[in-house]
Amino acid sequence: MNIAMIGAGNVAWHLAQALQAAGHTLTAVYSRTATHREELAQLLSQAQPIATLDLNTIPVDIVLIAVPDAALAPVASALQVAPGTVVAHTSGSQPLAILNAIANARKGVFYPLQTFSKTKAVDFKQVPMLVEAQDSATLQELVALAQSISKTIEAVASDSRKQLHLAAVFACNFTNHLLGISQQILQEANLPHHLLHPLIQETIAKAMQHNPYTVQTGPAIRHDENVIQEHLHMLQQHPRLQELYRLLTHSIQATADNS
Amino acid sequence: MNIAMIGAGNVAWHLAQALQAAGHTLTAVYSRTATHREELAQLLSQAQPIATLDLNTIPVDIVLIAVPDAALAPVASALQVAPGTVVAHTSGSQPLAILNAIANARKGVFYPLQTFSKTKAVDFKQVPMLVEAQDSATLQELVALAQSISKTIEAVASDSRKQLHLAAVFACNFTNHLLGISQQILQEANLPHHLLHPLIQETIAKAMQHNPYTVQTGPAIRHDENVIQEHLHMLQQHPRLQELYRLLTHSIQATADNS
Repeated sequence: MNIAMIGAGNVAWHLAQALQAAGHTLTAVYSRTATHREELAQLLSQAQPIATLDLNTIPVDIVLIAVPDAALAPVASALQVAPGTVVAHTSGSQPLAILNAIANARKGVFYPLQTFSKTKAVDFKQVPMLVEAQDSATLQELVALAQSISKTIEAVASDSRKQLHLAAVFACNFTNHLLGISQQILQEANLPHHLLHPLIQETIAKAMQHNPYTVQTGPAIRHDENVIQEHLHMLQQHPRLQELYRLLTHSIQATADNS
Repeated sequence: MNIAMIGAGNVAWHLAQALQAAGHTLTAVYSRTATHREELAQLLSQAQPIATLDLNTIPVDIVLIAVPDAALAPVASALQVAPGTVVAHTSGSQPLAILNAIANARKGVFYPLQTFSKTKAVDFKQVPMLVEAQDSATLQELVALAQSISKTIEAVASDSRKQLHLAAVFACNFTNHLLGISQQILQEANLPHHLLHPLIQETIAKAMQHNPYTVQTGPAIRHDENVIQEHLHMLQQHPRLQELYRLLTHSIQATADNS
């Protein structure tokens, strides 16, 4: 497939290289920032860095739009493609319909459910690809494209993808913040964070094998008021962390009471 | 070493078997509940199940007390050992001094920093052992015992161990609860939880390699108010989860603002 990548951020960066490695040809990379589109295009054997969203002169079967959510609507309004071109965005939280402004295109979603940093390699085979399209022929093309880079493909409608994104915020963004708090507590006590790594790994392994609610441990679920009060006291210099501790403790107890 | 195990719960269960596998002799298992002490003693080649805390007639060099935190003080008050016996508890949150009531003993702490379930095997070599003792000779004995089962041993005073325990509550107990919430959201949307597993694993891997605060992603750190408001709207049937979402979002933003 001839593919044009709109965007040169973390997702575009990894996705373009994975697609090239799978045998596709990246023909163009668009970014408003010259250095960004040039850096990514240099990693791709046949891609030209472009500063226009009129793709009529570019050989392209599929256009992937990997830009920040807030830029999706303006990009869709400006994009020009030959009739019948497949155009898909890569966002977890935005609906298929945000592409409605693009005339003549066959529209879809091509969402890699993973967190990306340019500095960290990603094994795309392990990345679930969530696809959606306006019609079944377009869906089939996007599924085939997904199968060329990943072993997990799921057709998911916009509403469900939004639920997945919400769940991911709890499982990943919020979890990362709690891990940051734990590291802060240890740093303030001059203790090495690696001591907690085996416990974190075991916690995650257990939570993926079971319903986490059924394997909950700790002072909250035991209603161990002495320990809870001592922990709140230890956090007295950090009122925000105290409030989080209280609310999470209450939520663990309320979940257990309701089950 | 001849070791007596006081307690037959999750920690005692795994610790006793790891110590026997390392060549030590478990000579006695105490539990108030007959079936519990008998079940564990049966797994140990030379242990007798005992219903008394007077260990004067039992051959024992080291007594390990692995009972619920609330039972530690009463057990310490009732325990009788020959002069010079090493007695250590296995609690993360309780100080060394909670053993003060035991006469003649050389007192310490022998804390495996891990979460245990009887049904799940544990590789003790990967479990950090945090030790503490009233004097250096006792500490050396507990360090040697820890080295026989684990490759990570750290001498940690009671105050620091308490900080570690608090950090573990955030990193593990609270994290597990968030993973439970994410699973609940997916179940309510009839979506399979395994789709999130690669993202969870990548999040954890990244958080252990970096300061998690510096690799925070998601709508909160981007101040993406549209997505945040939509997520809060999606949680309108779950006011407790809305409150958690709001507070965690605020905490992520406040952390970034302060750094």
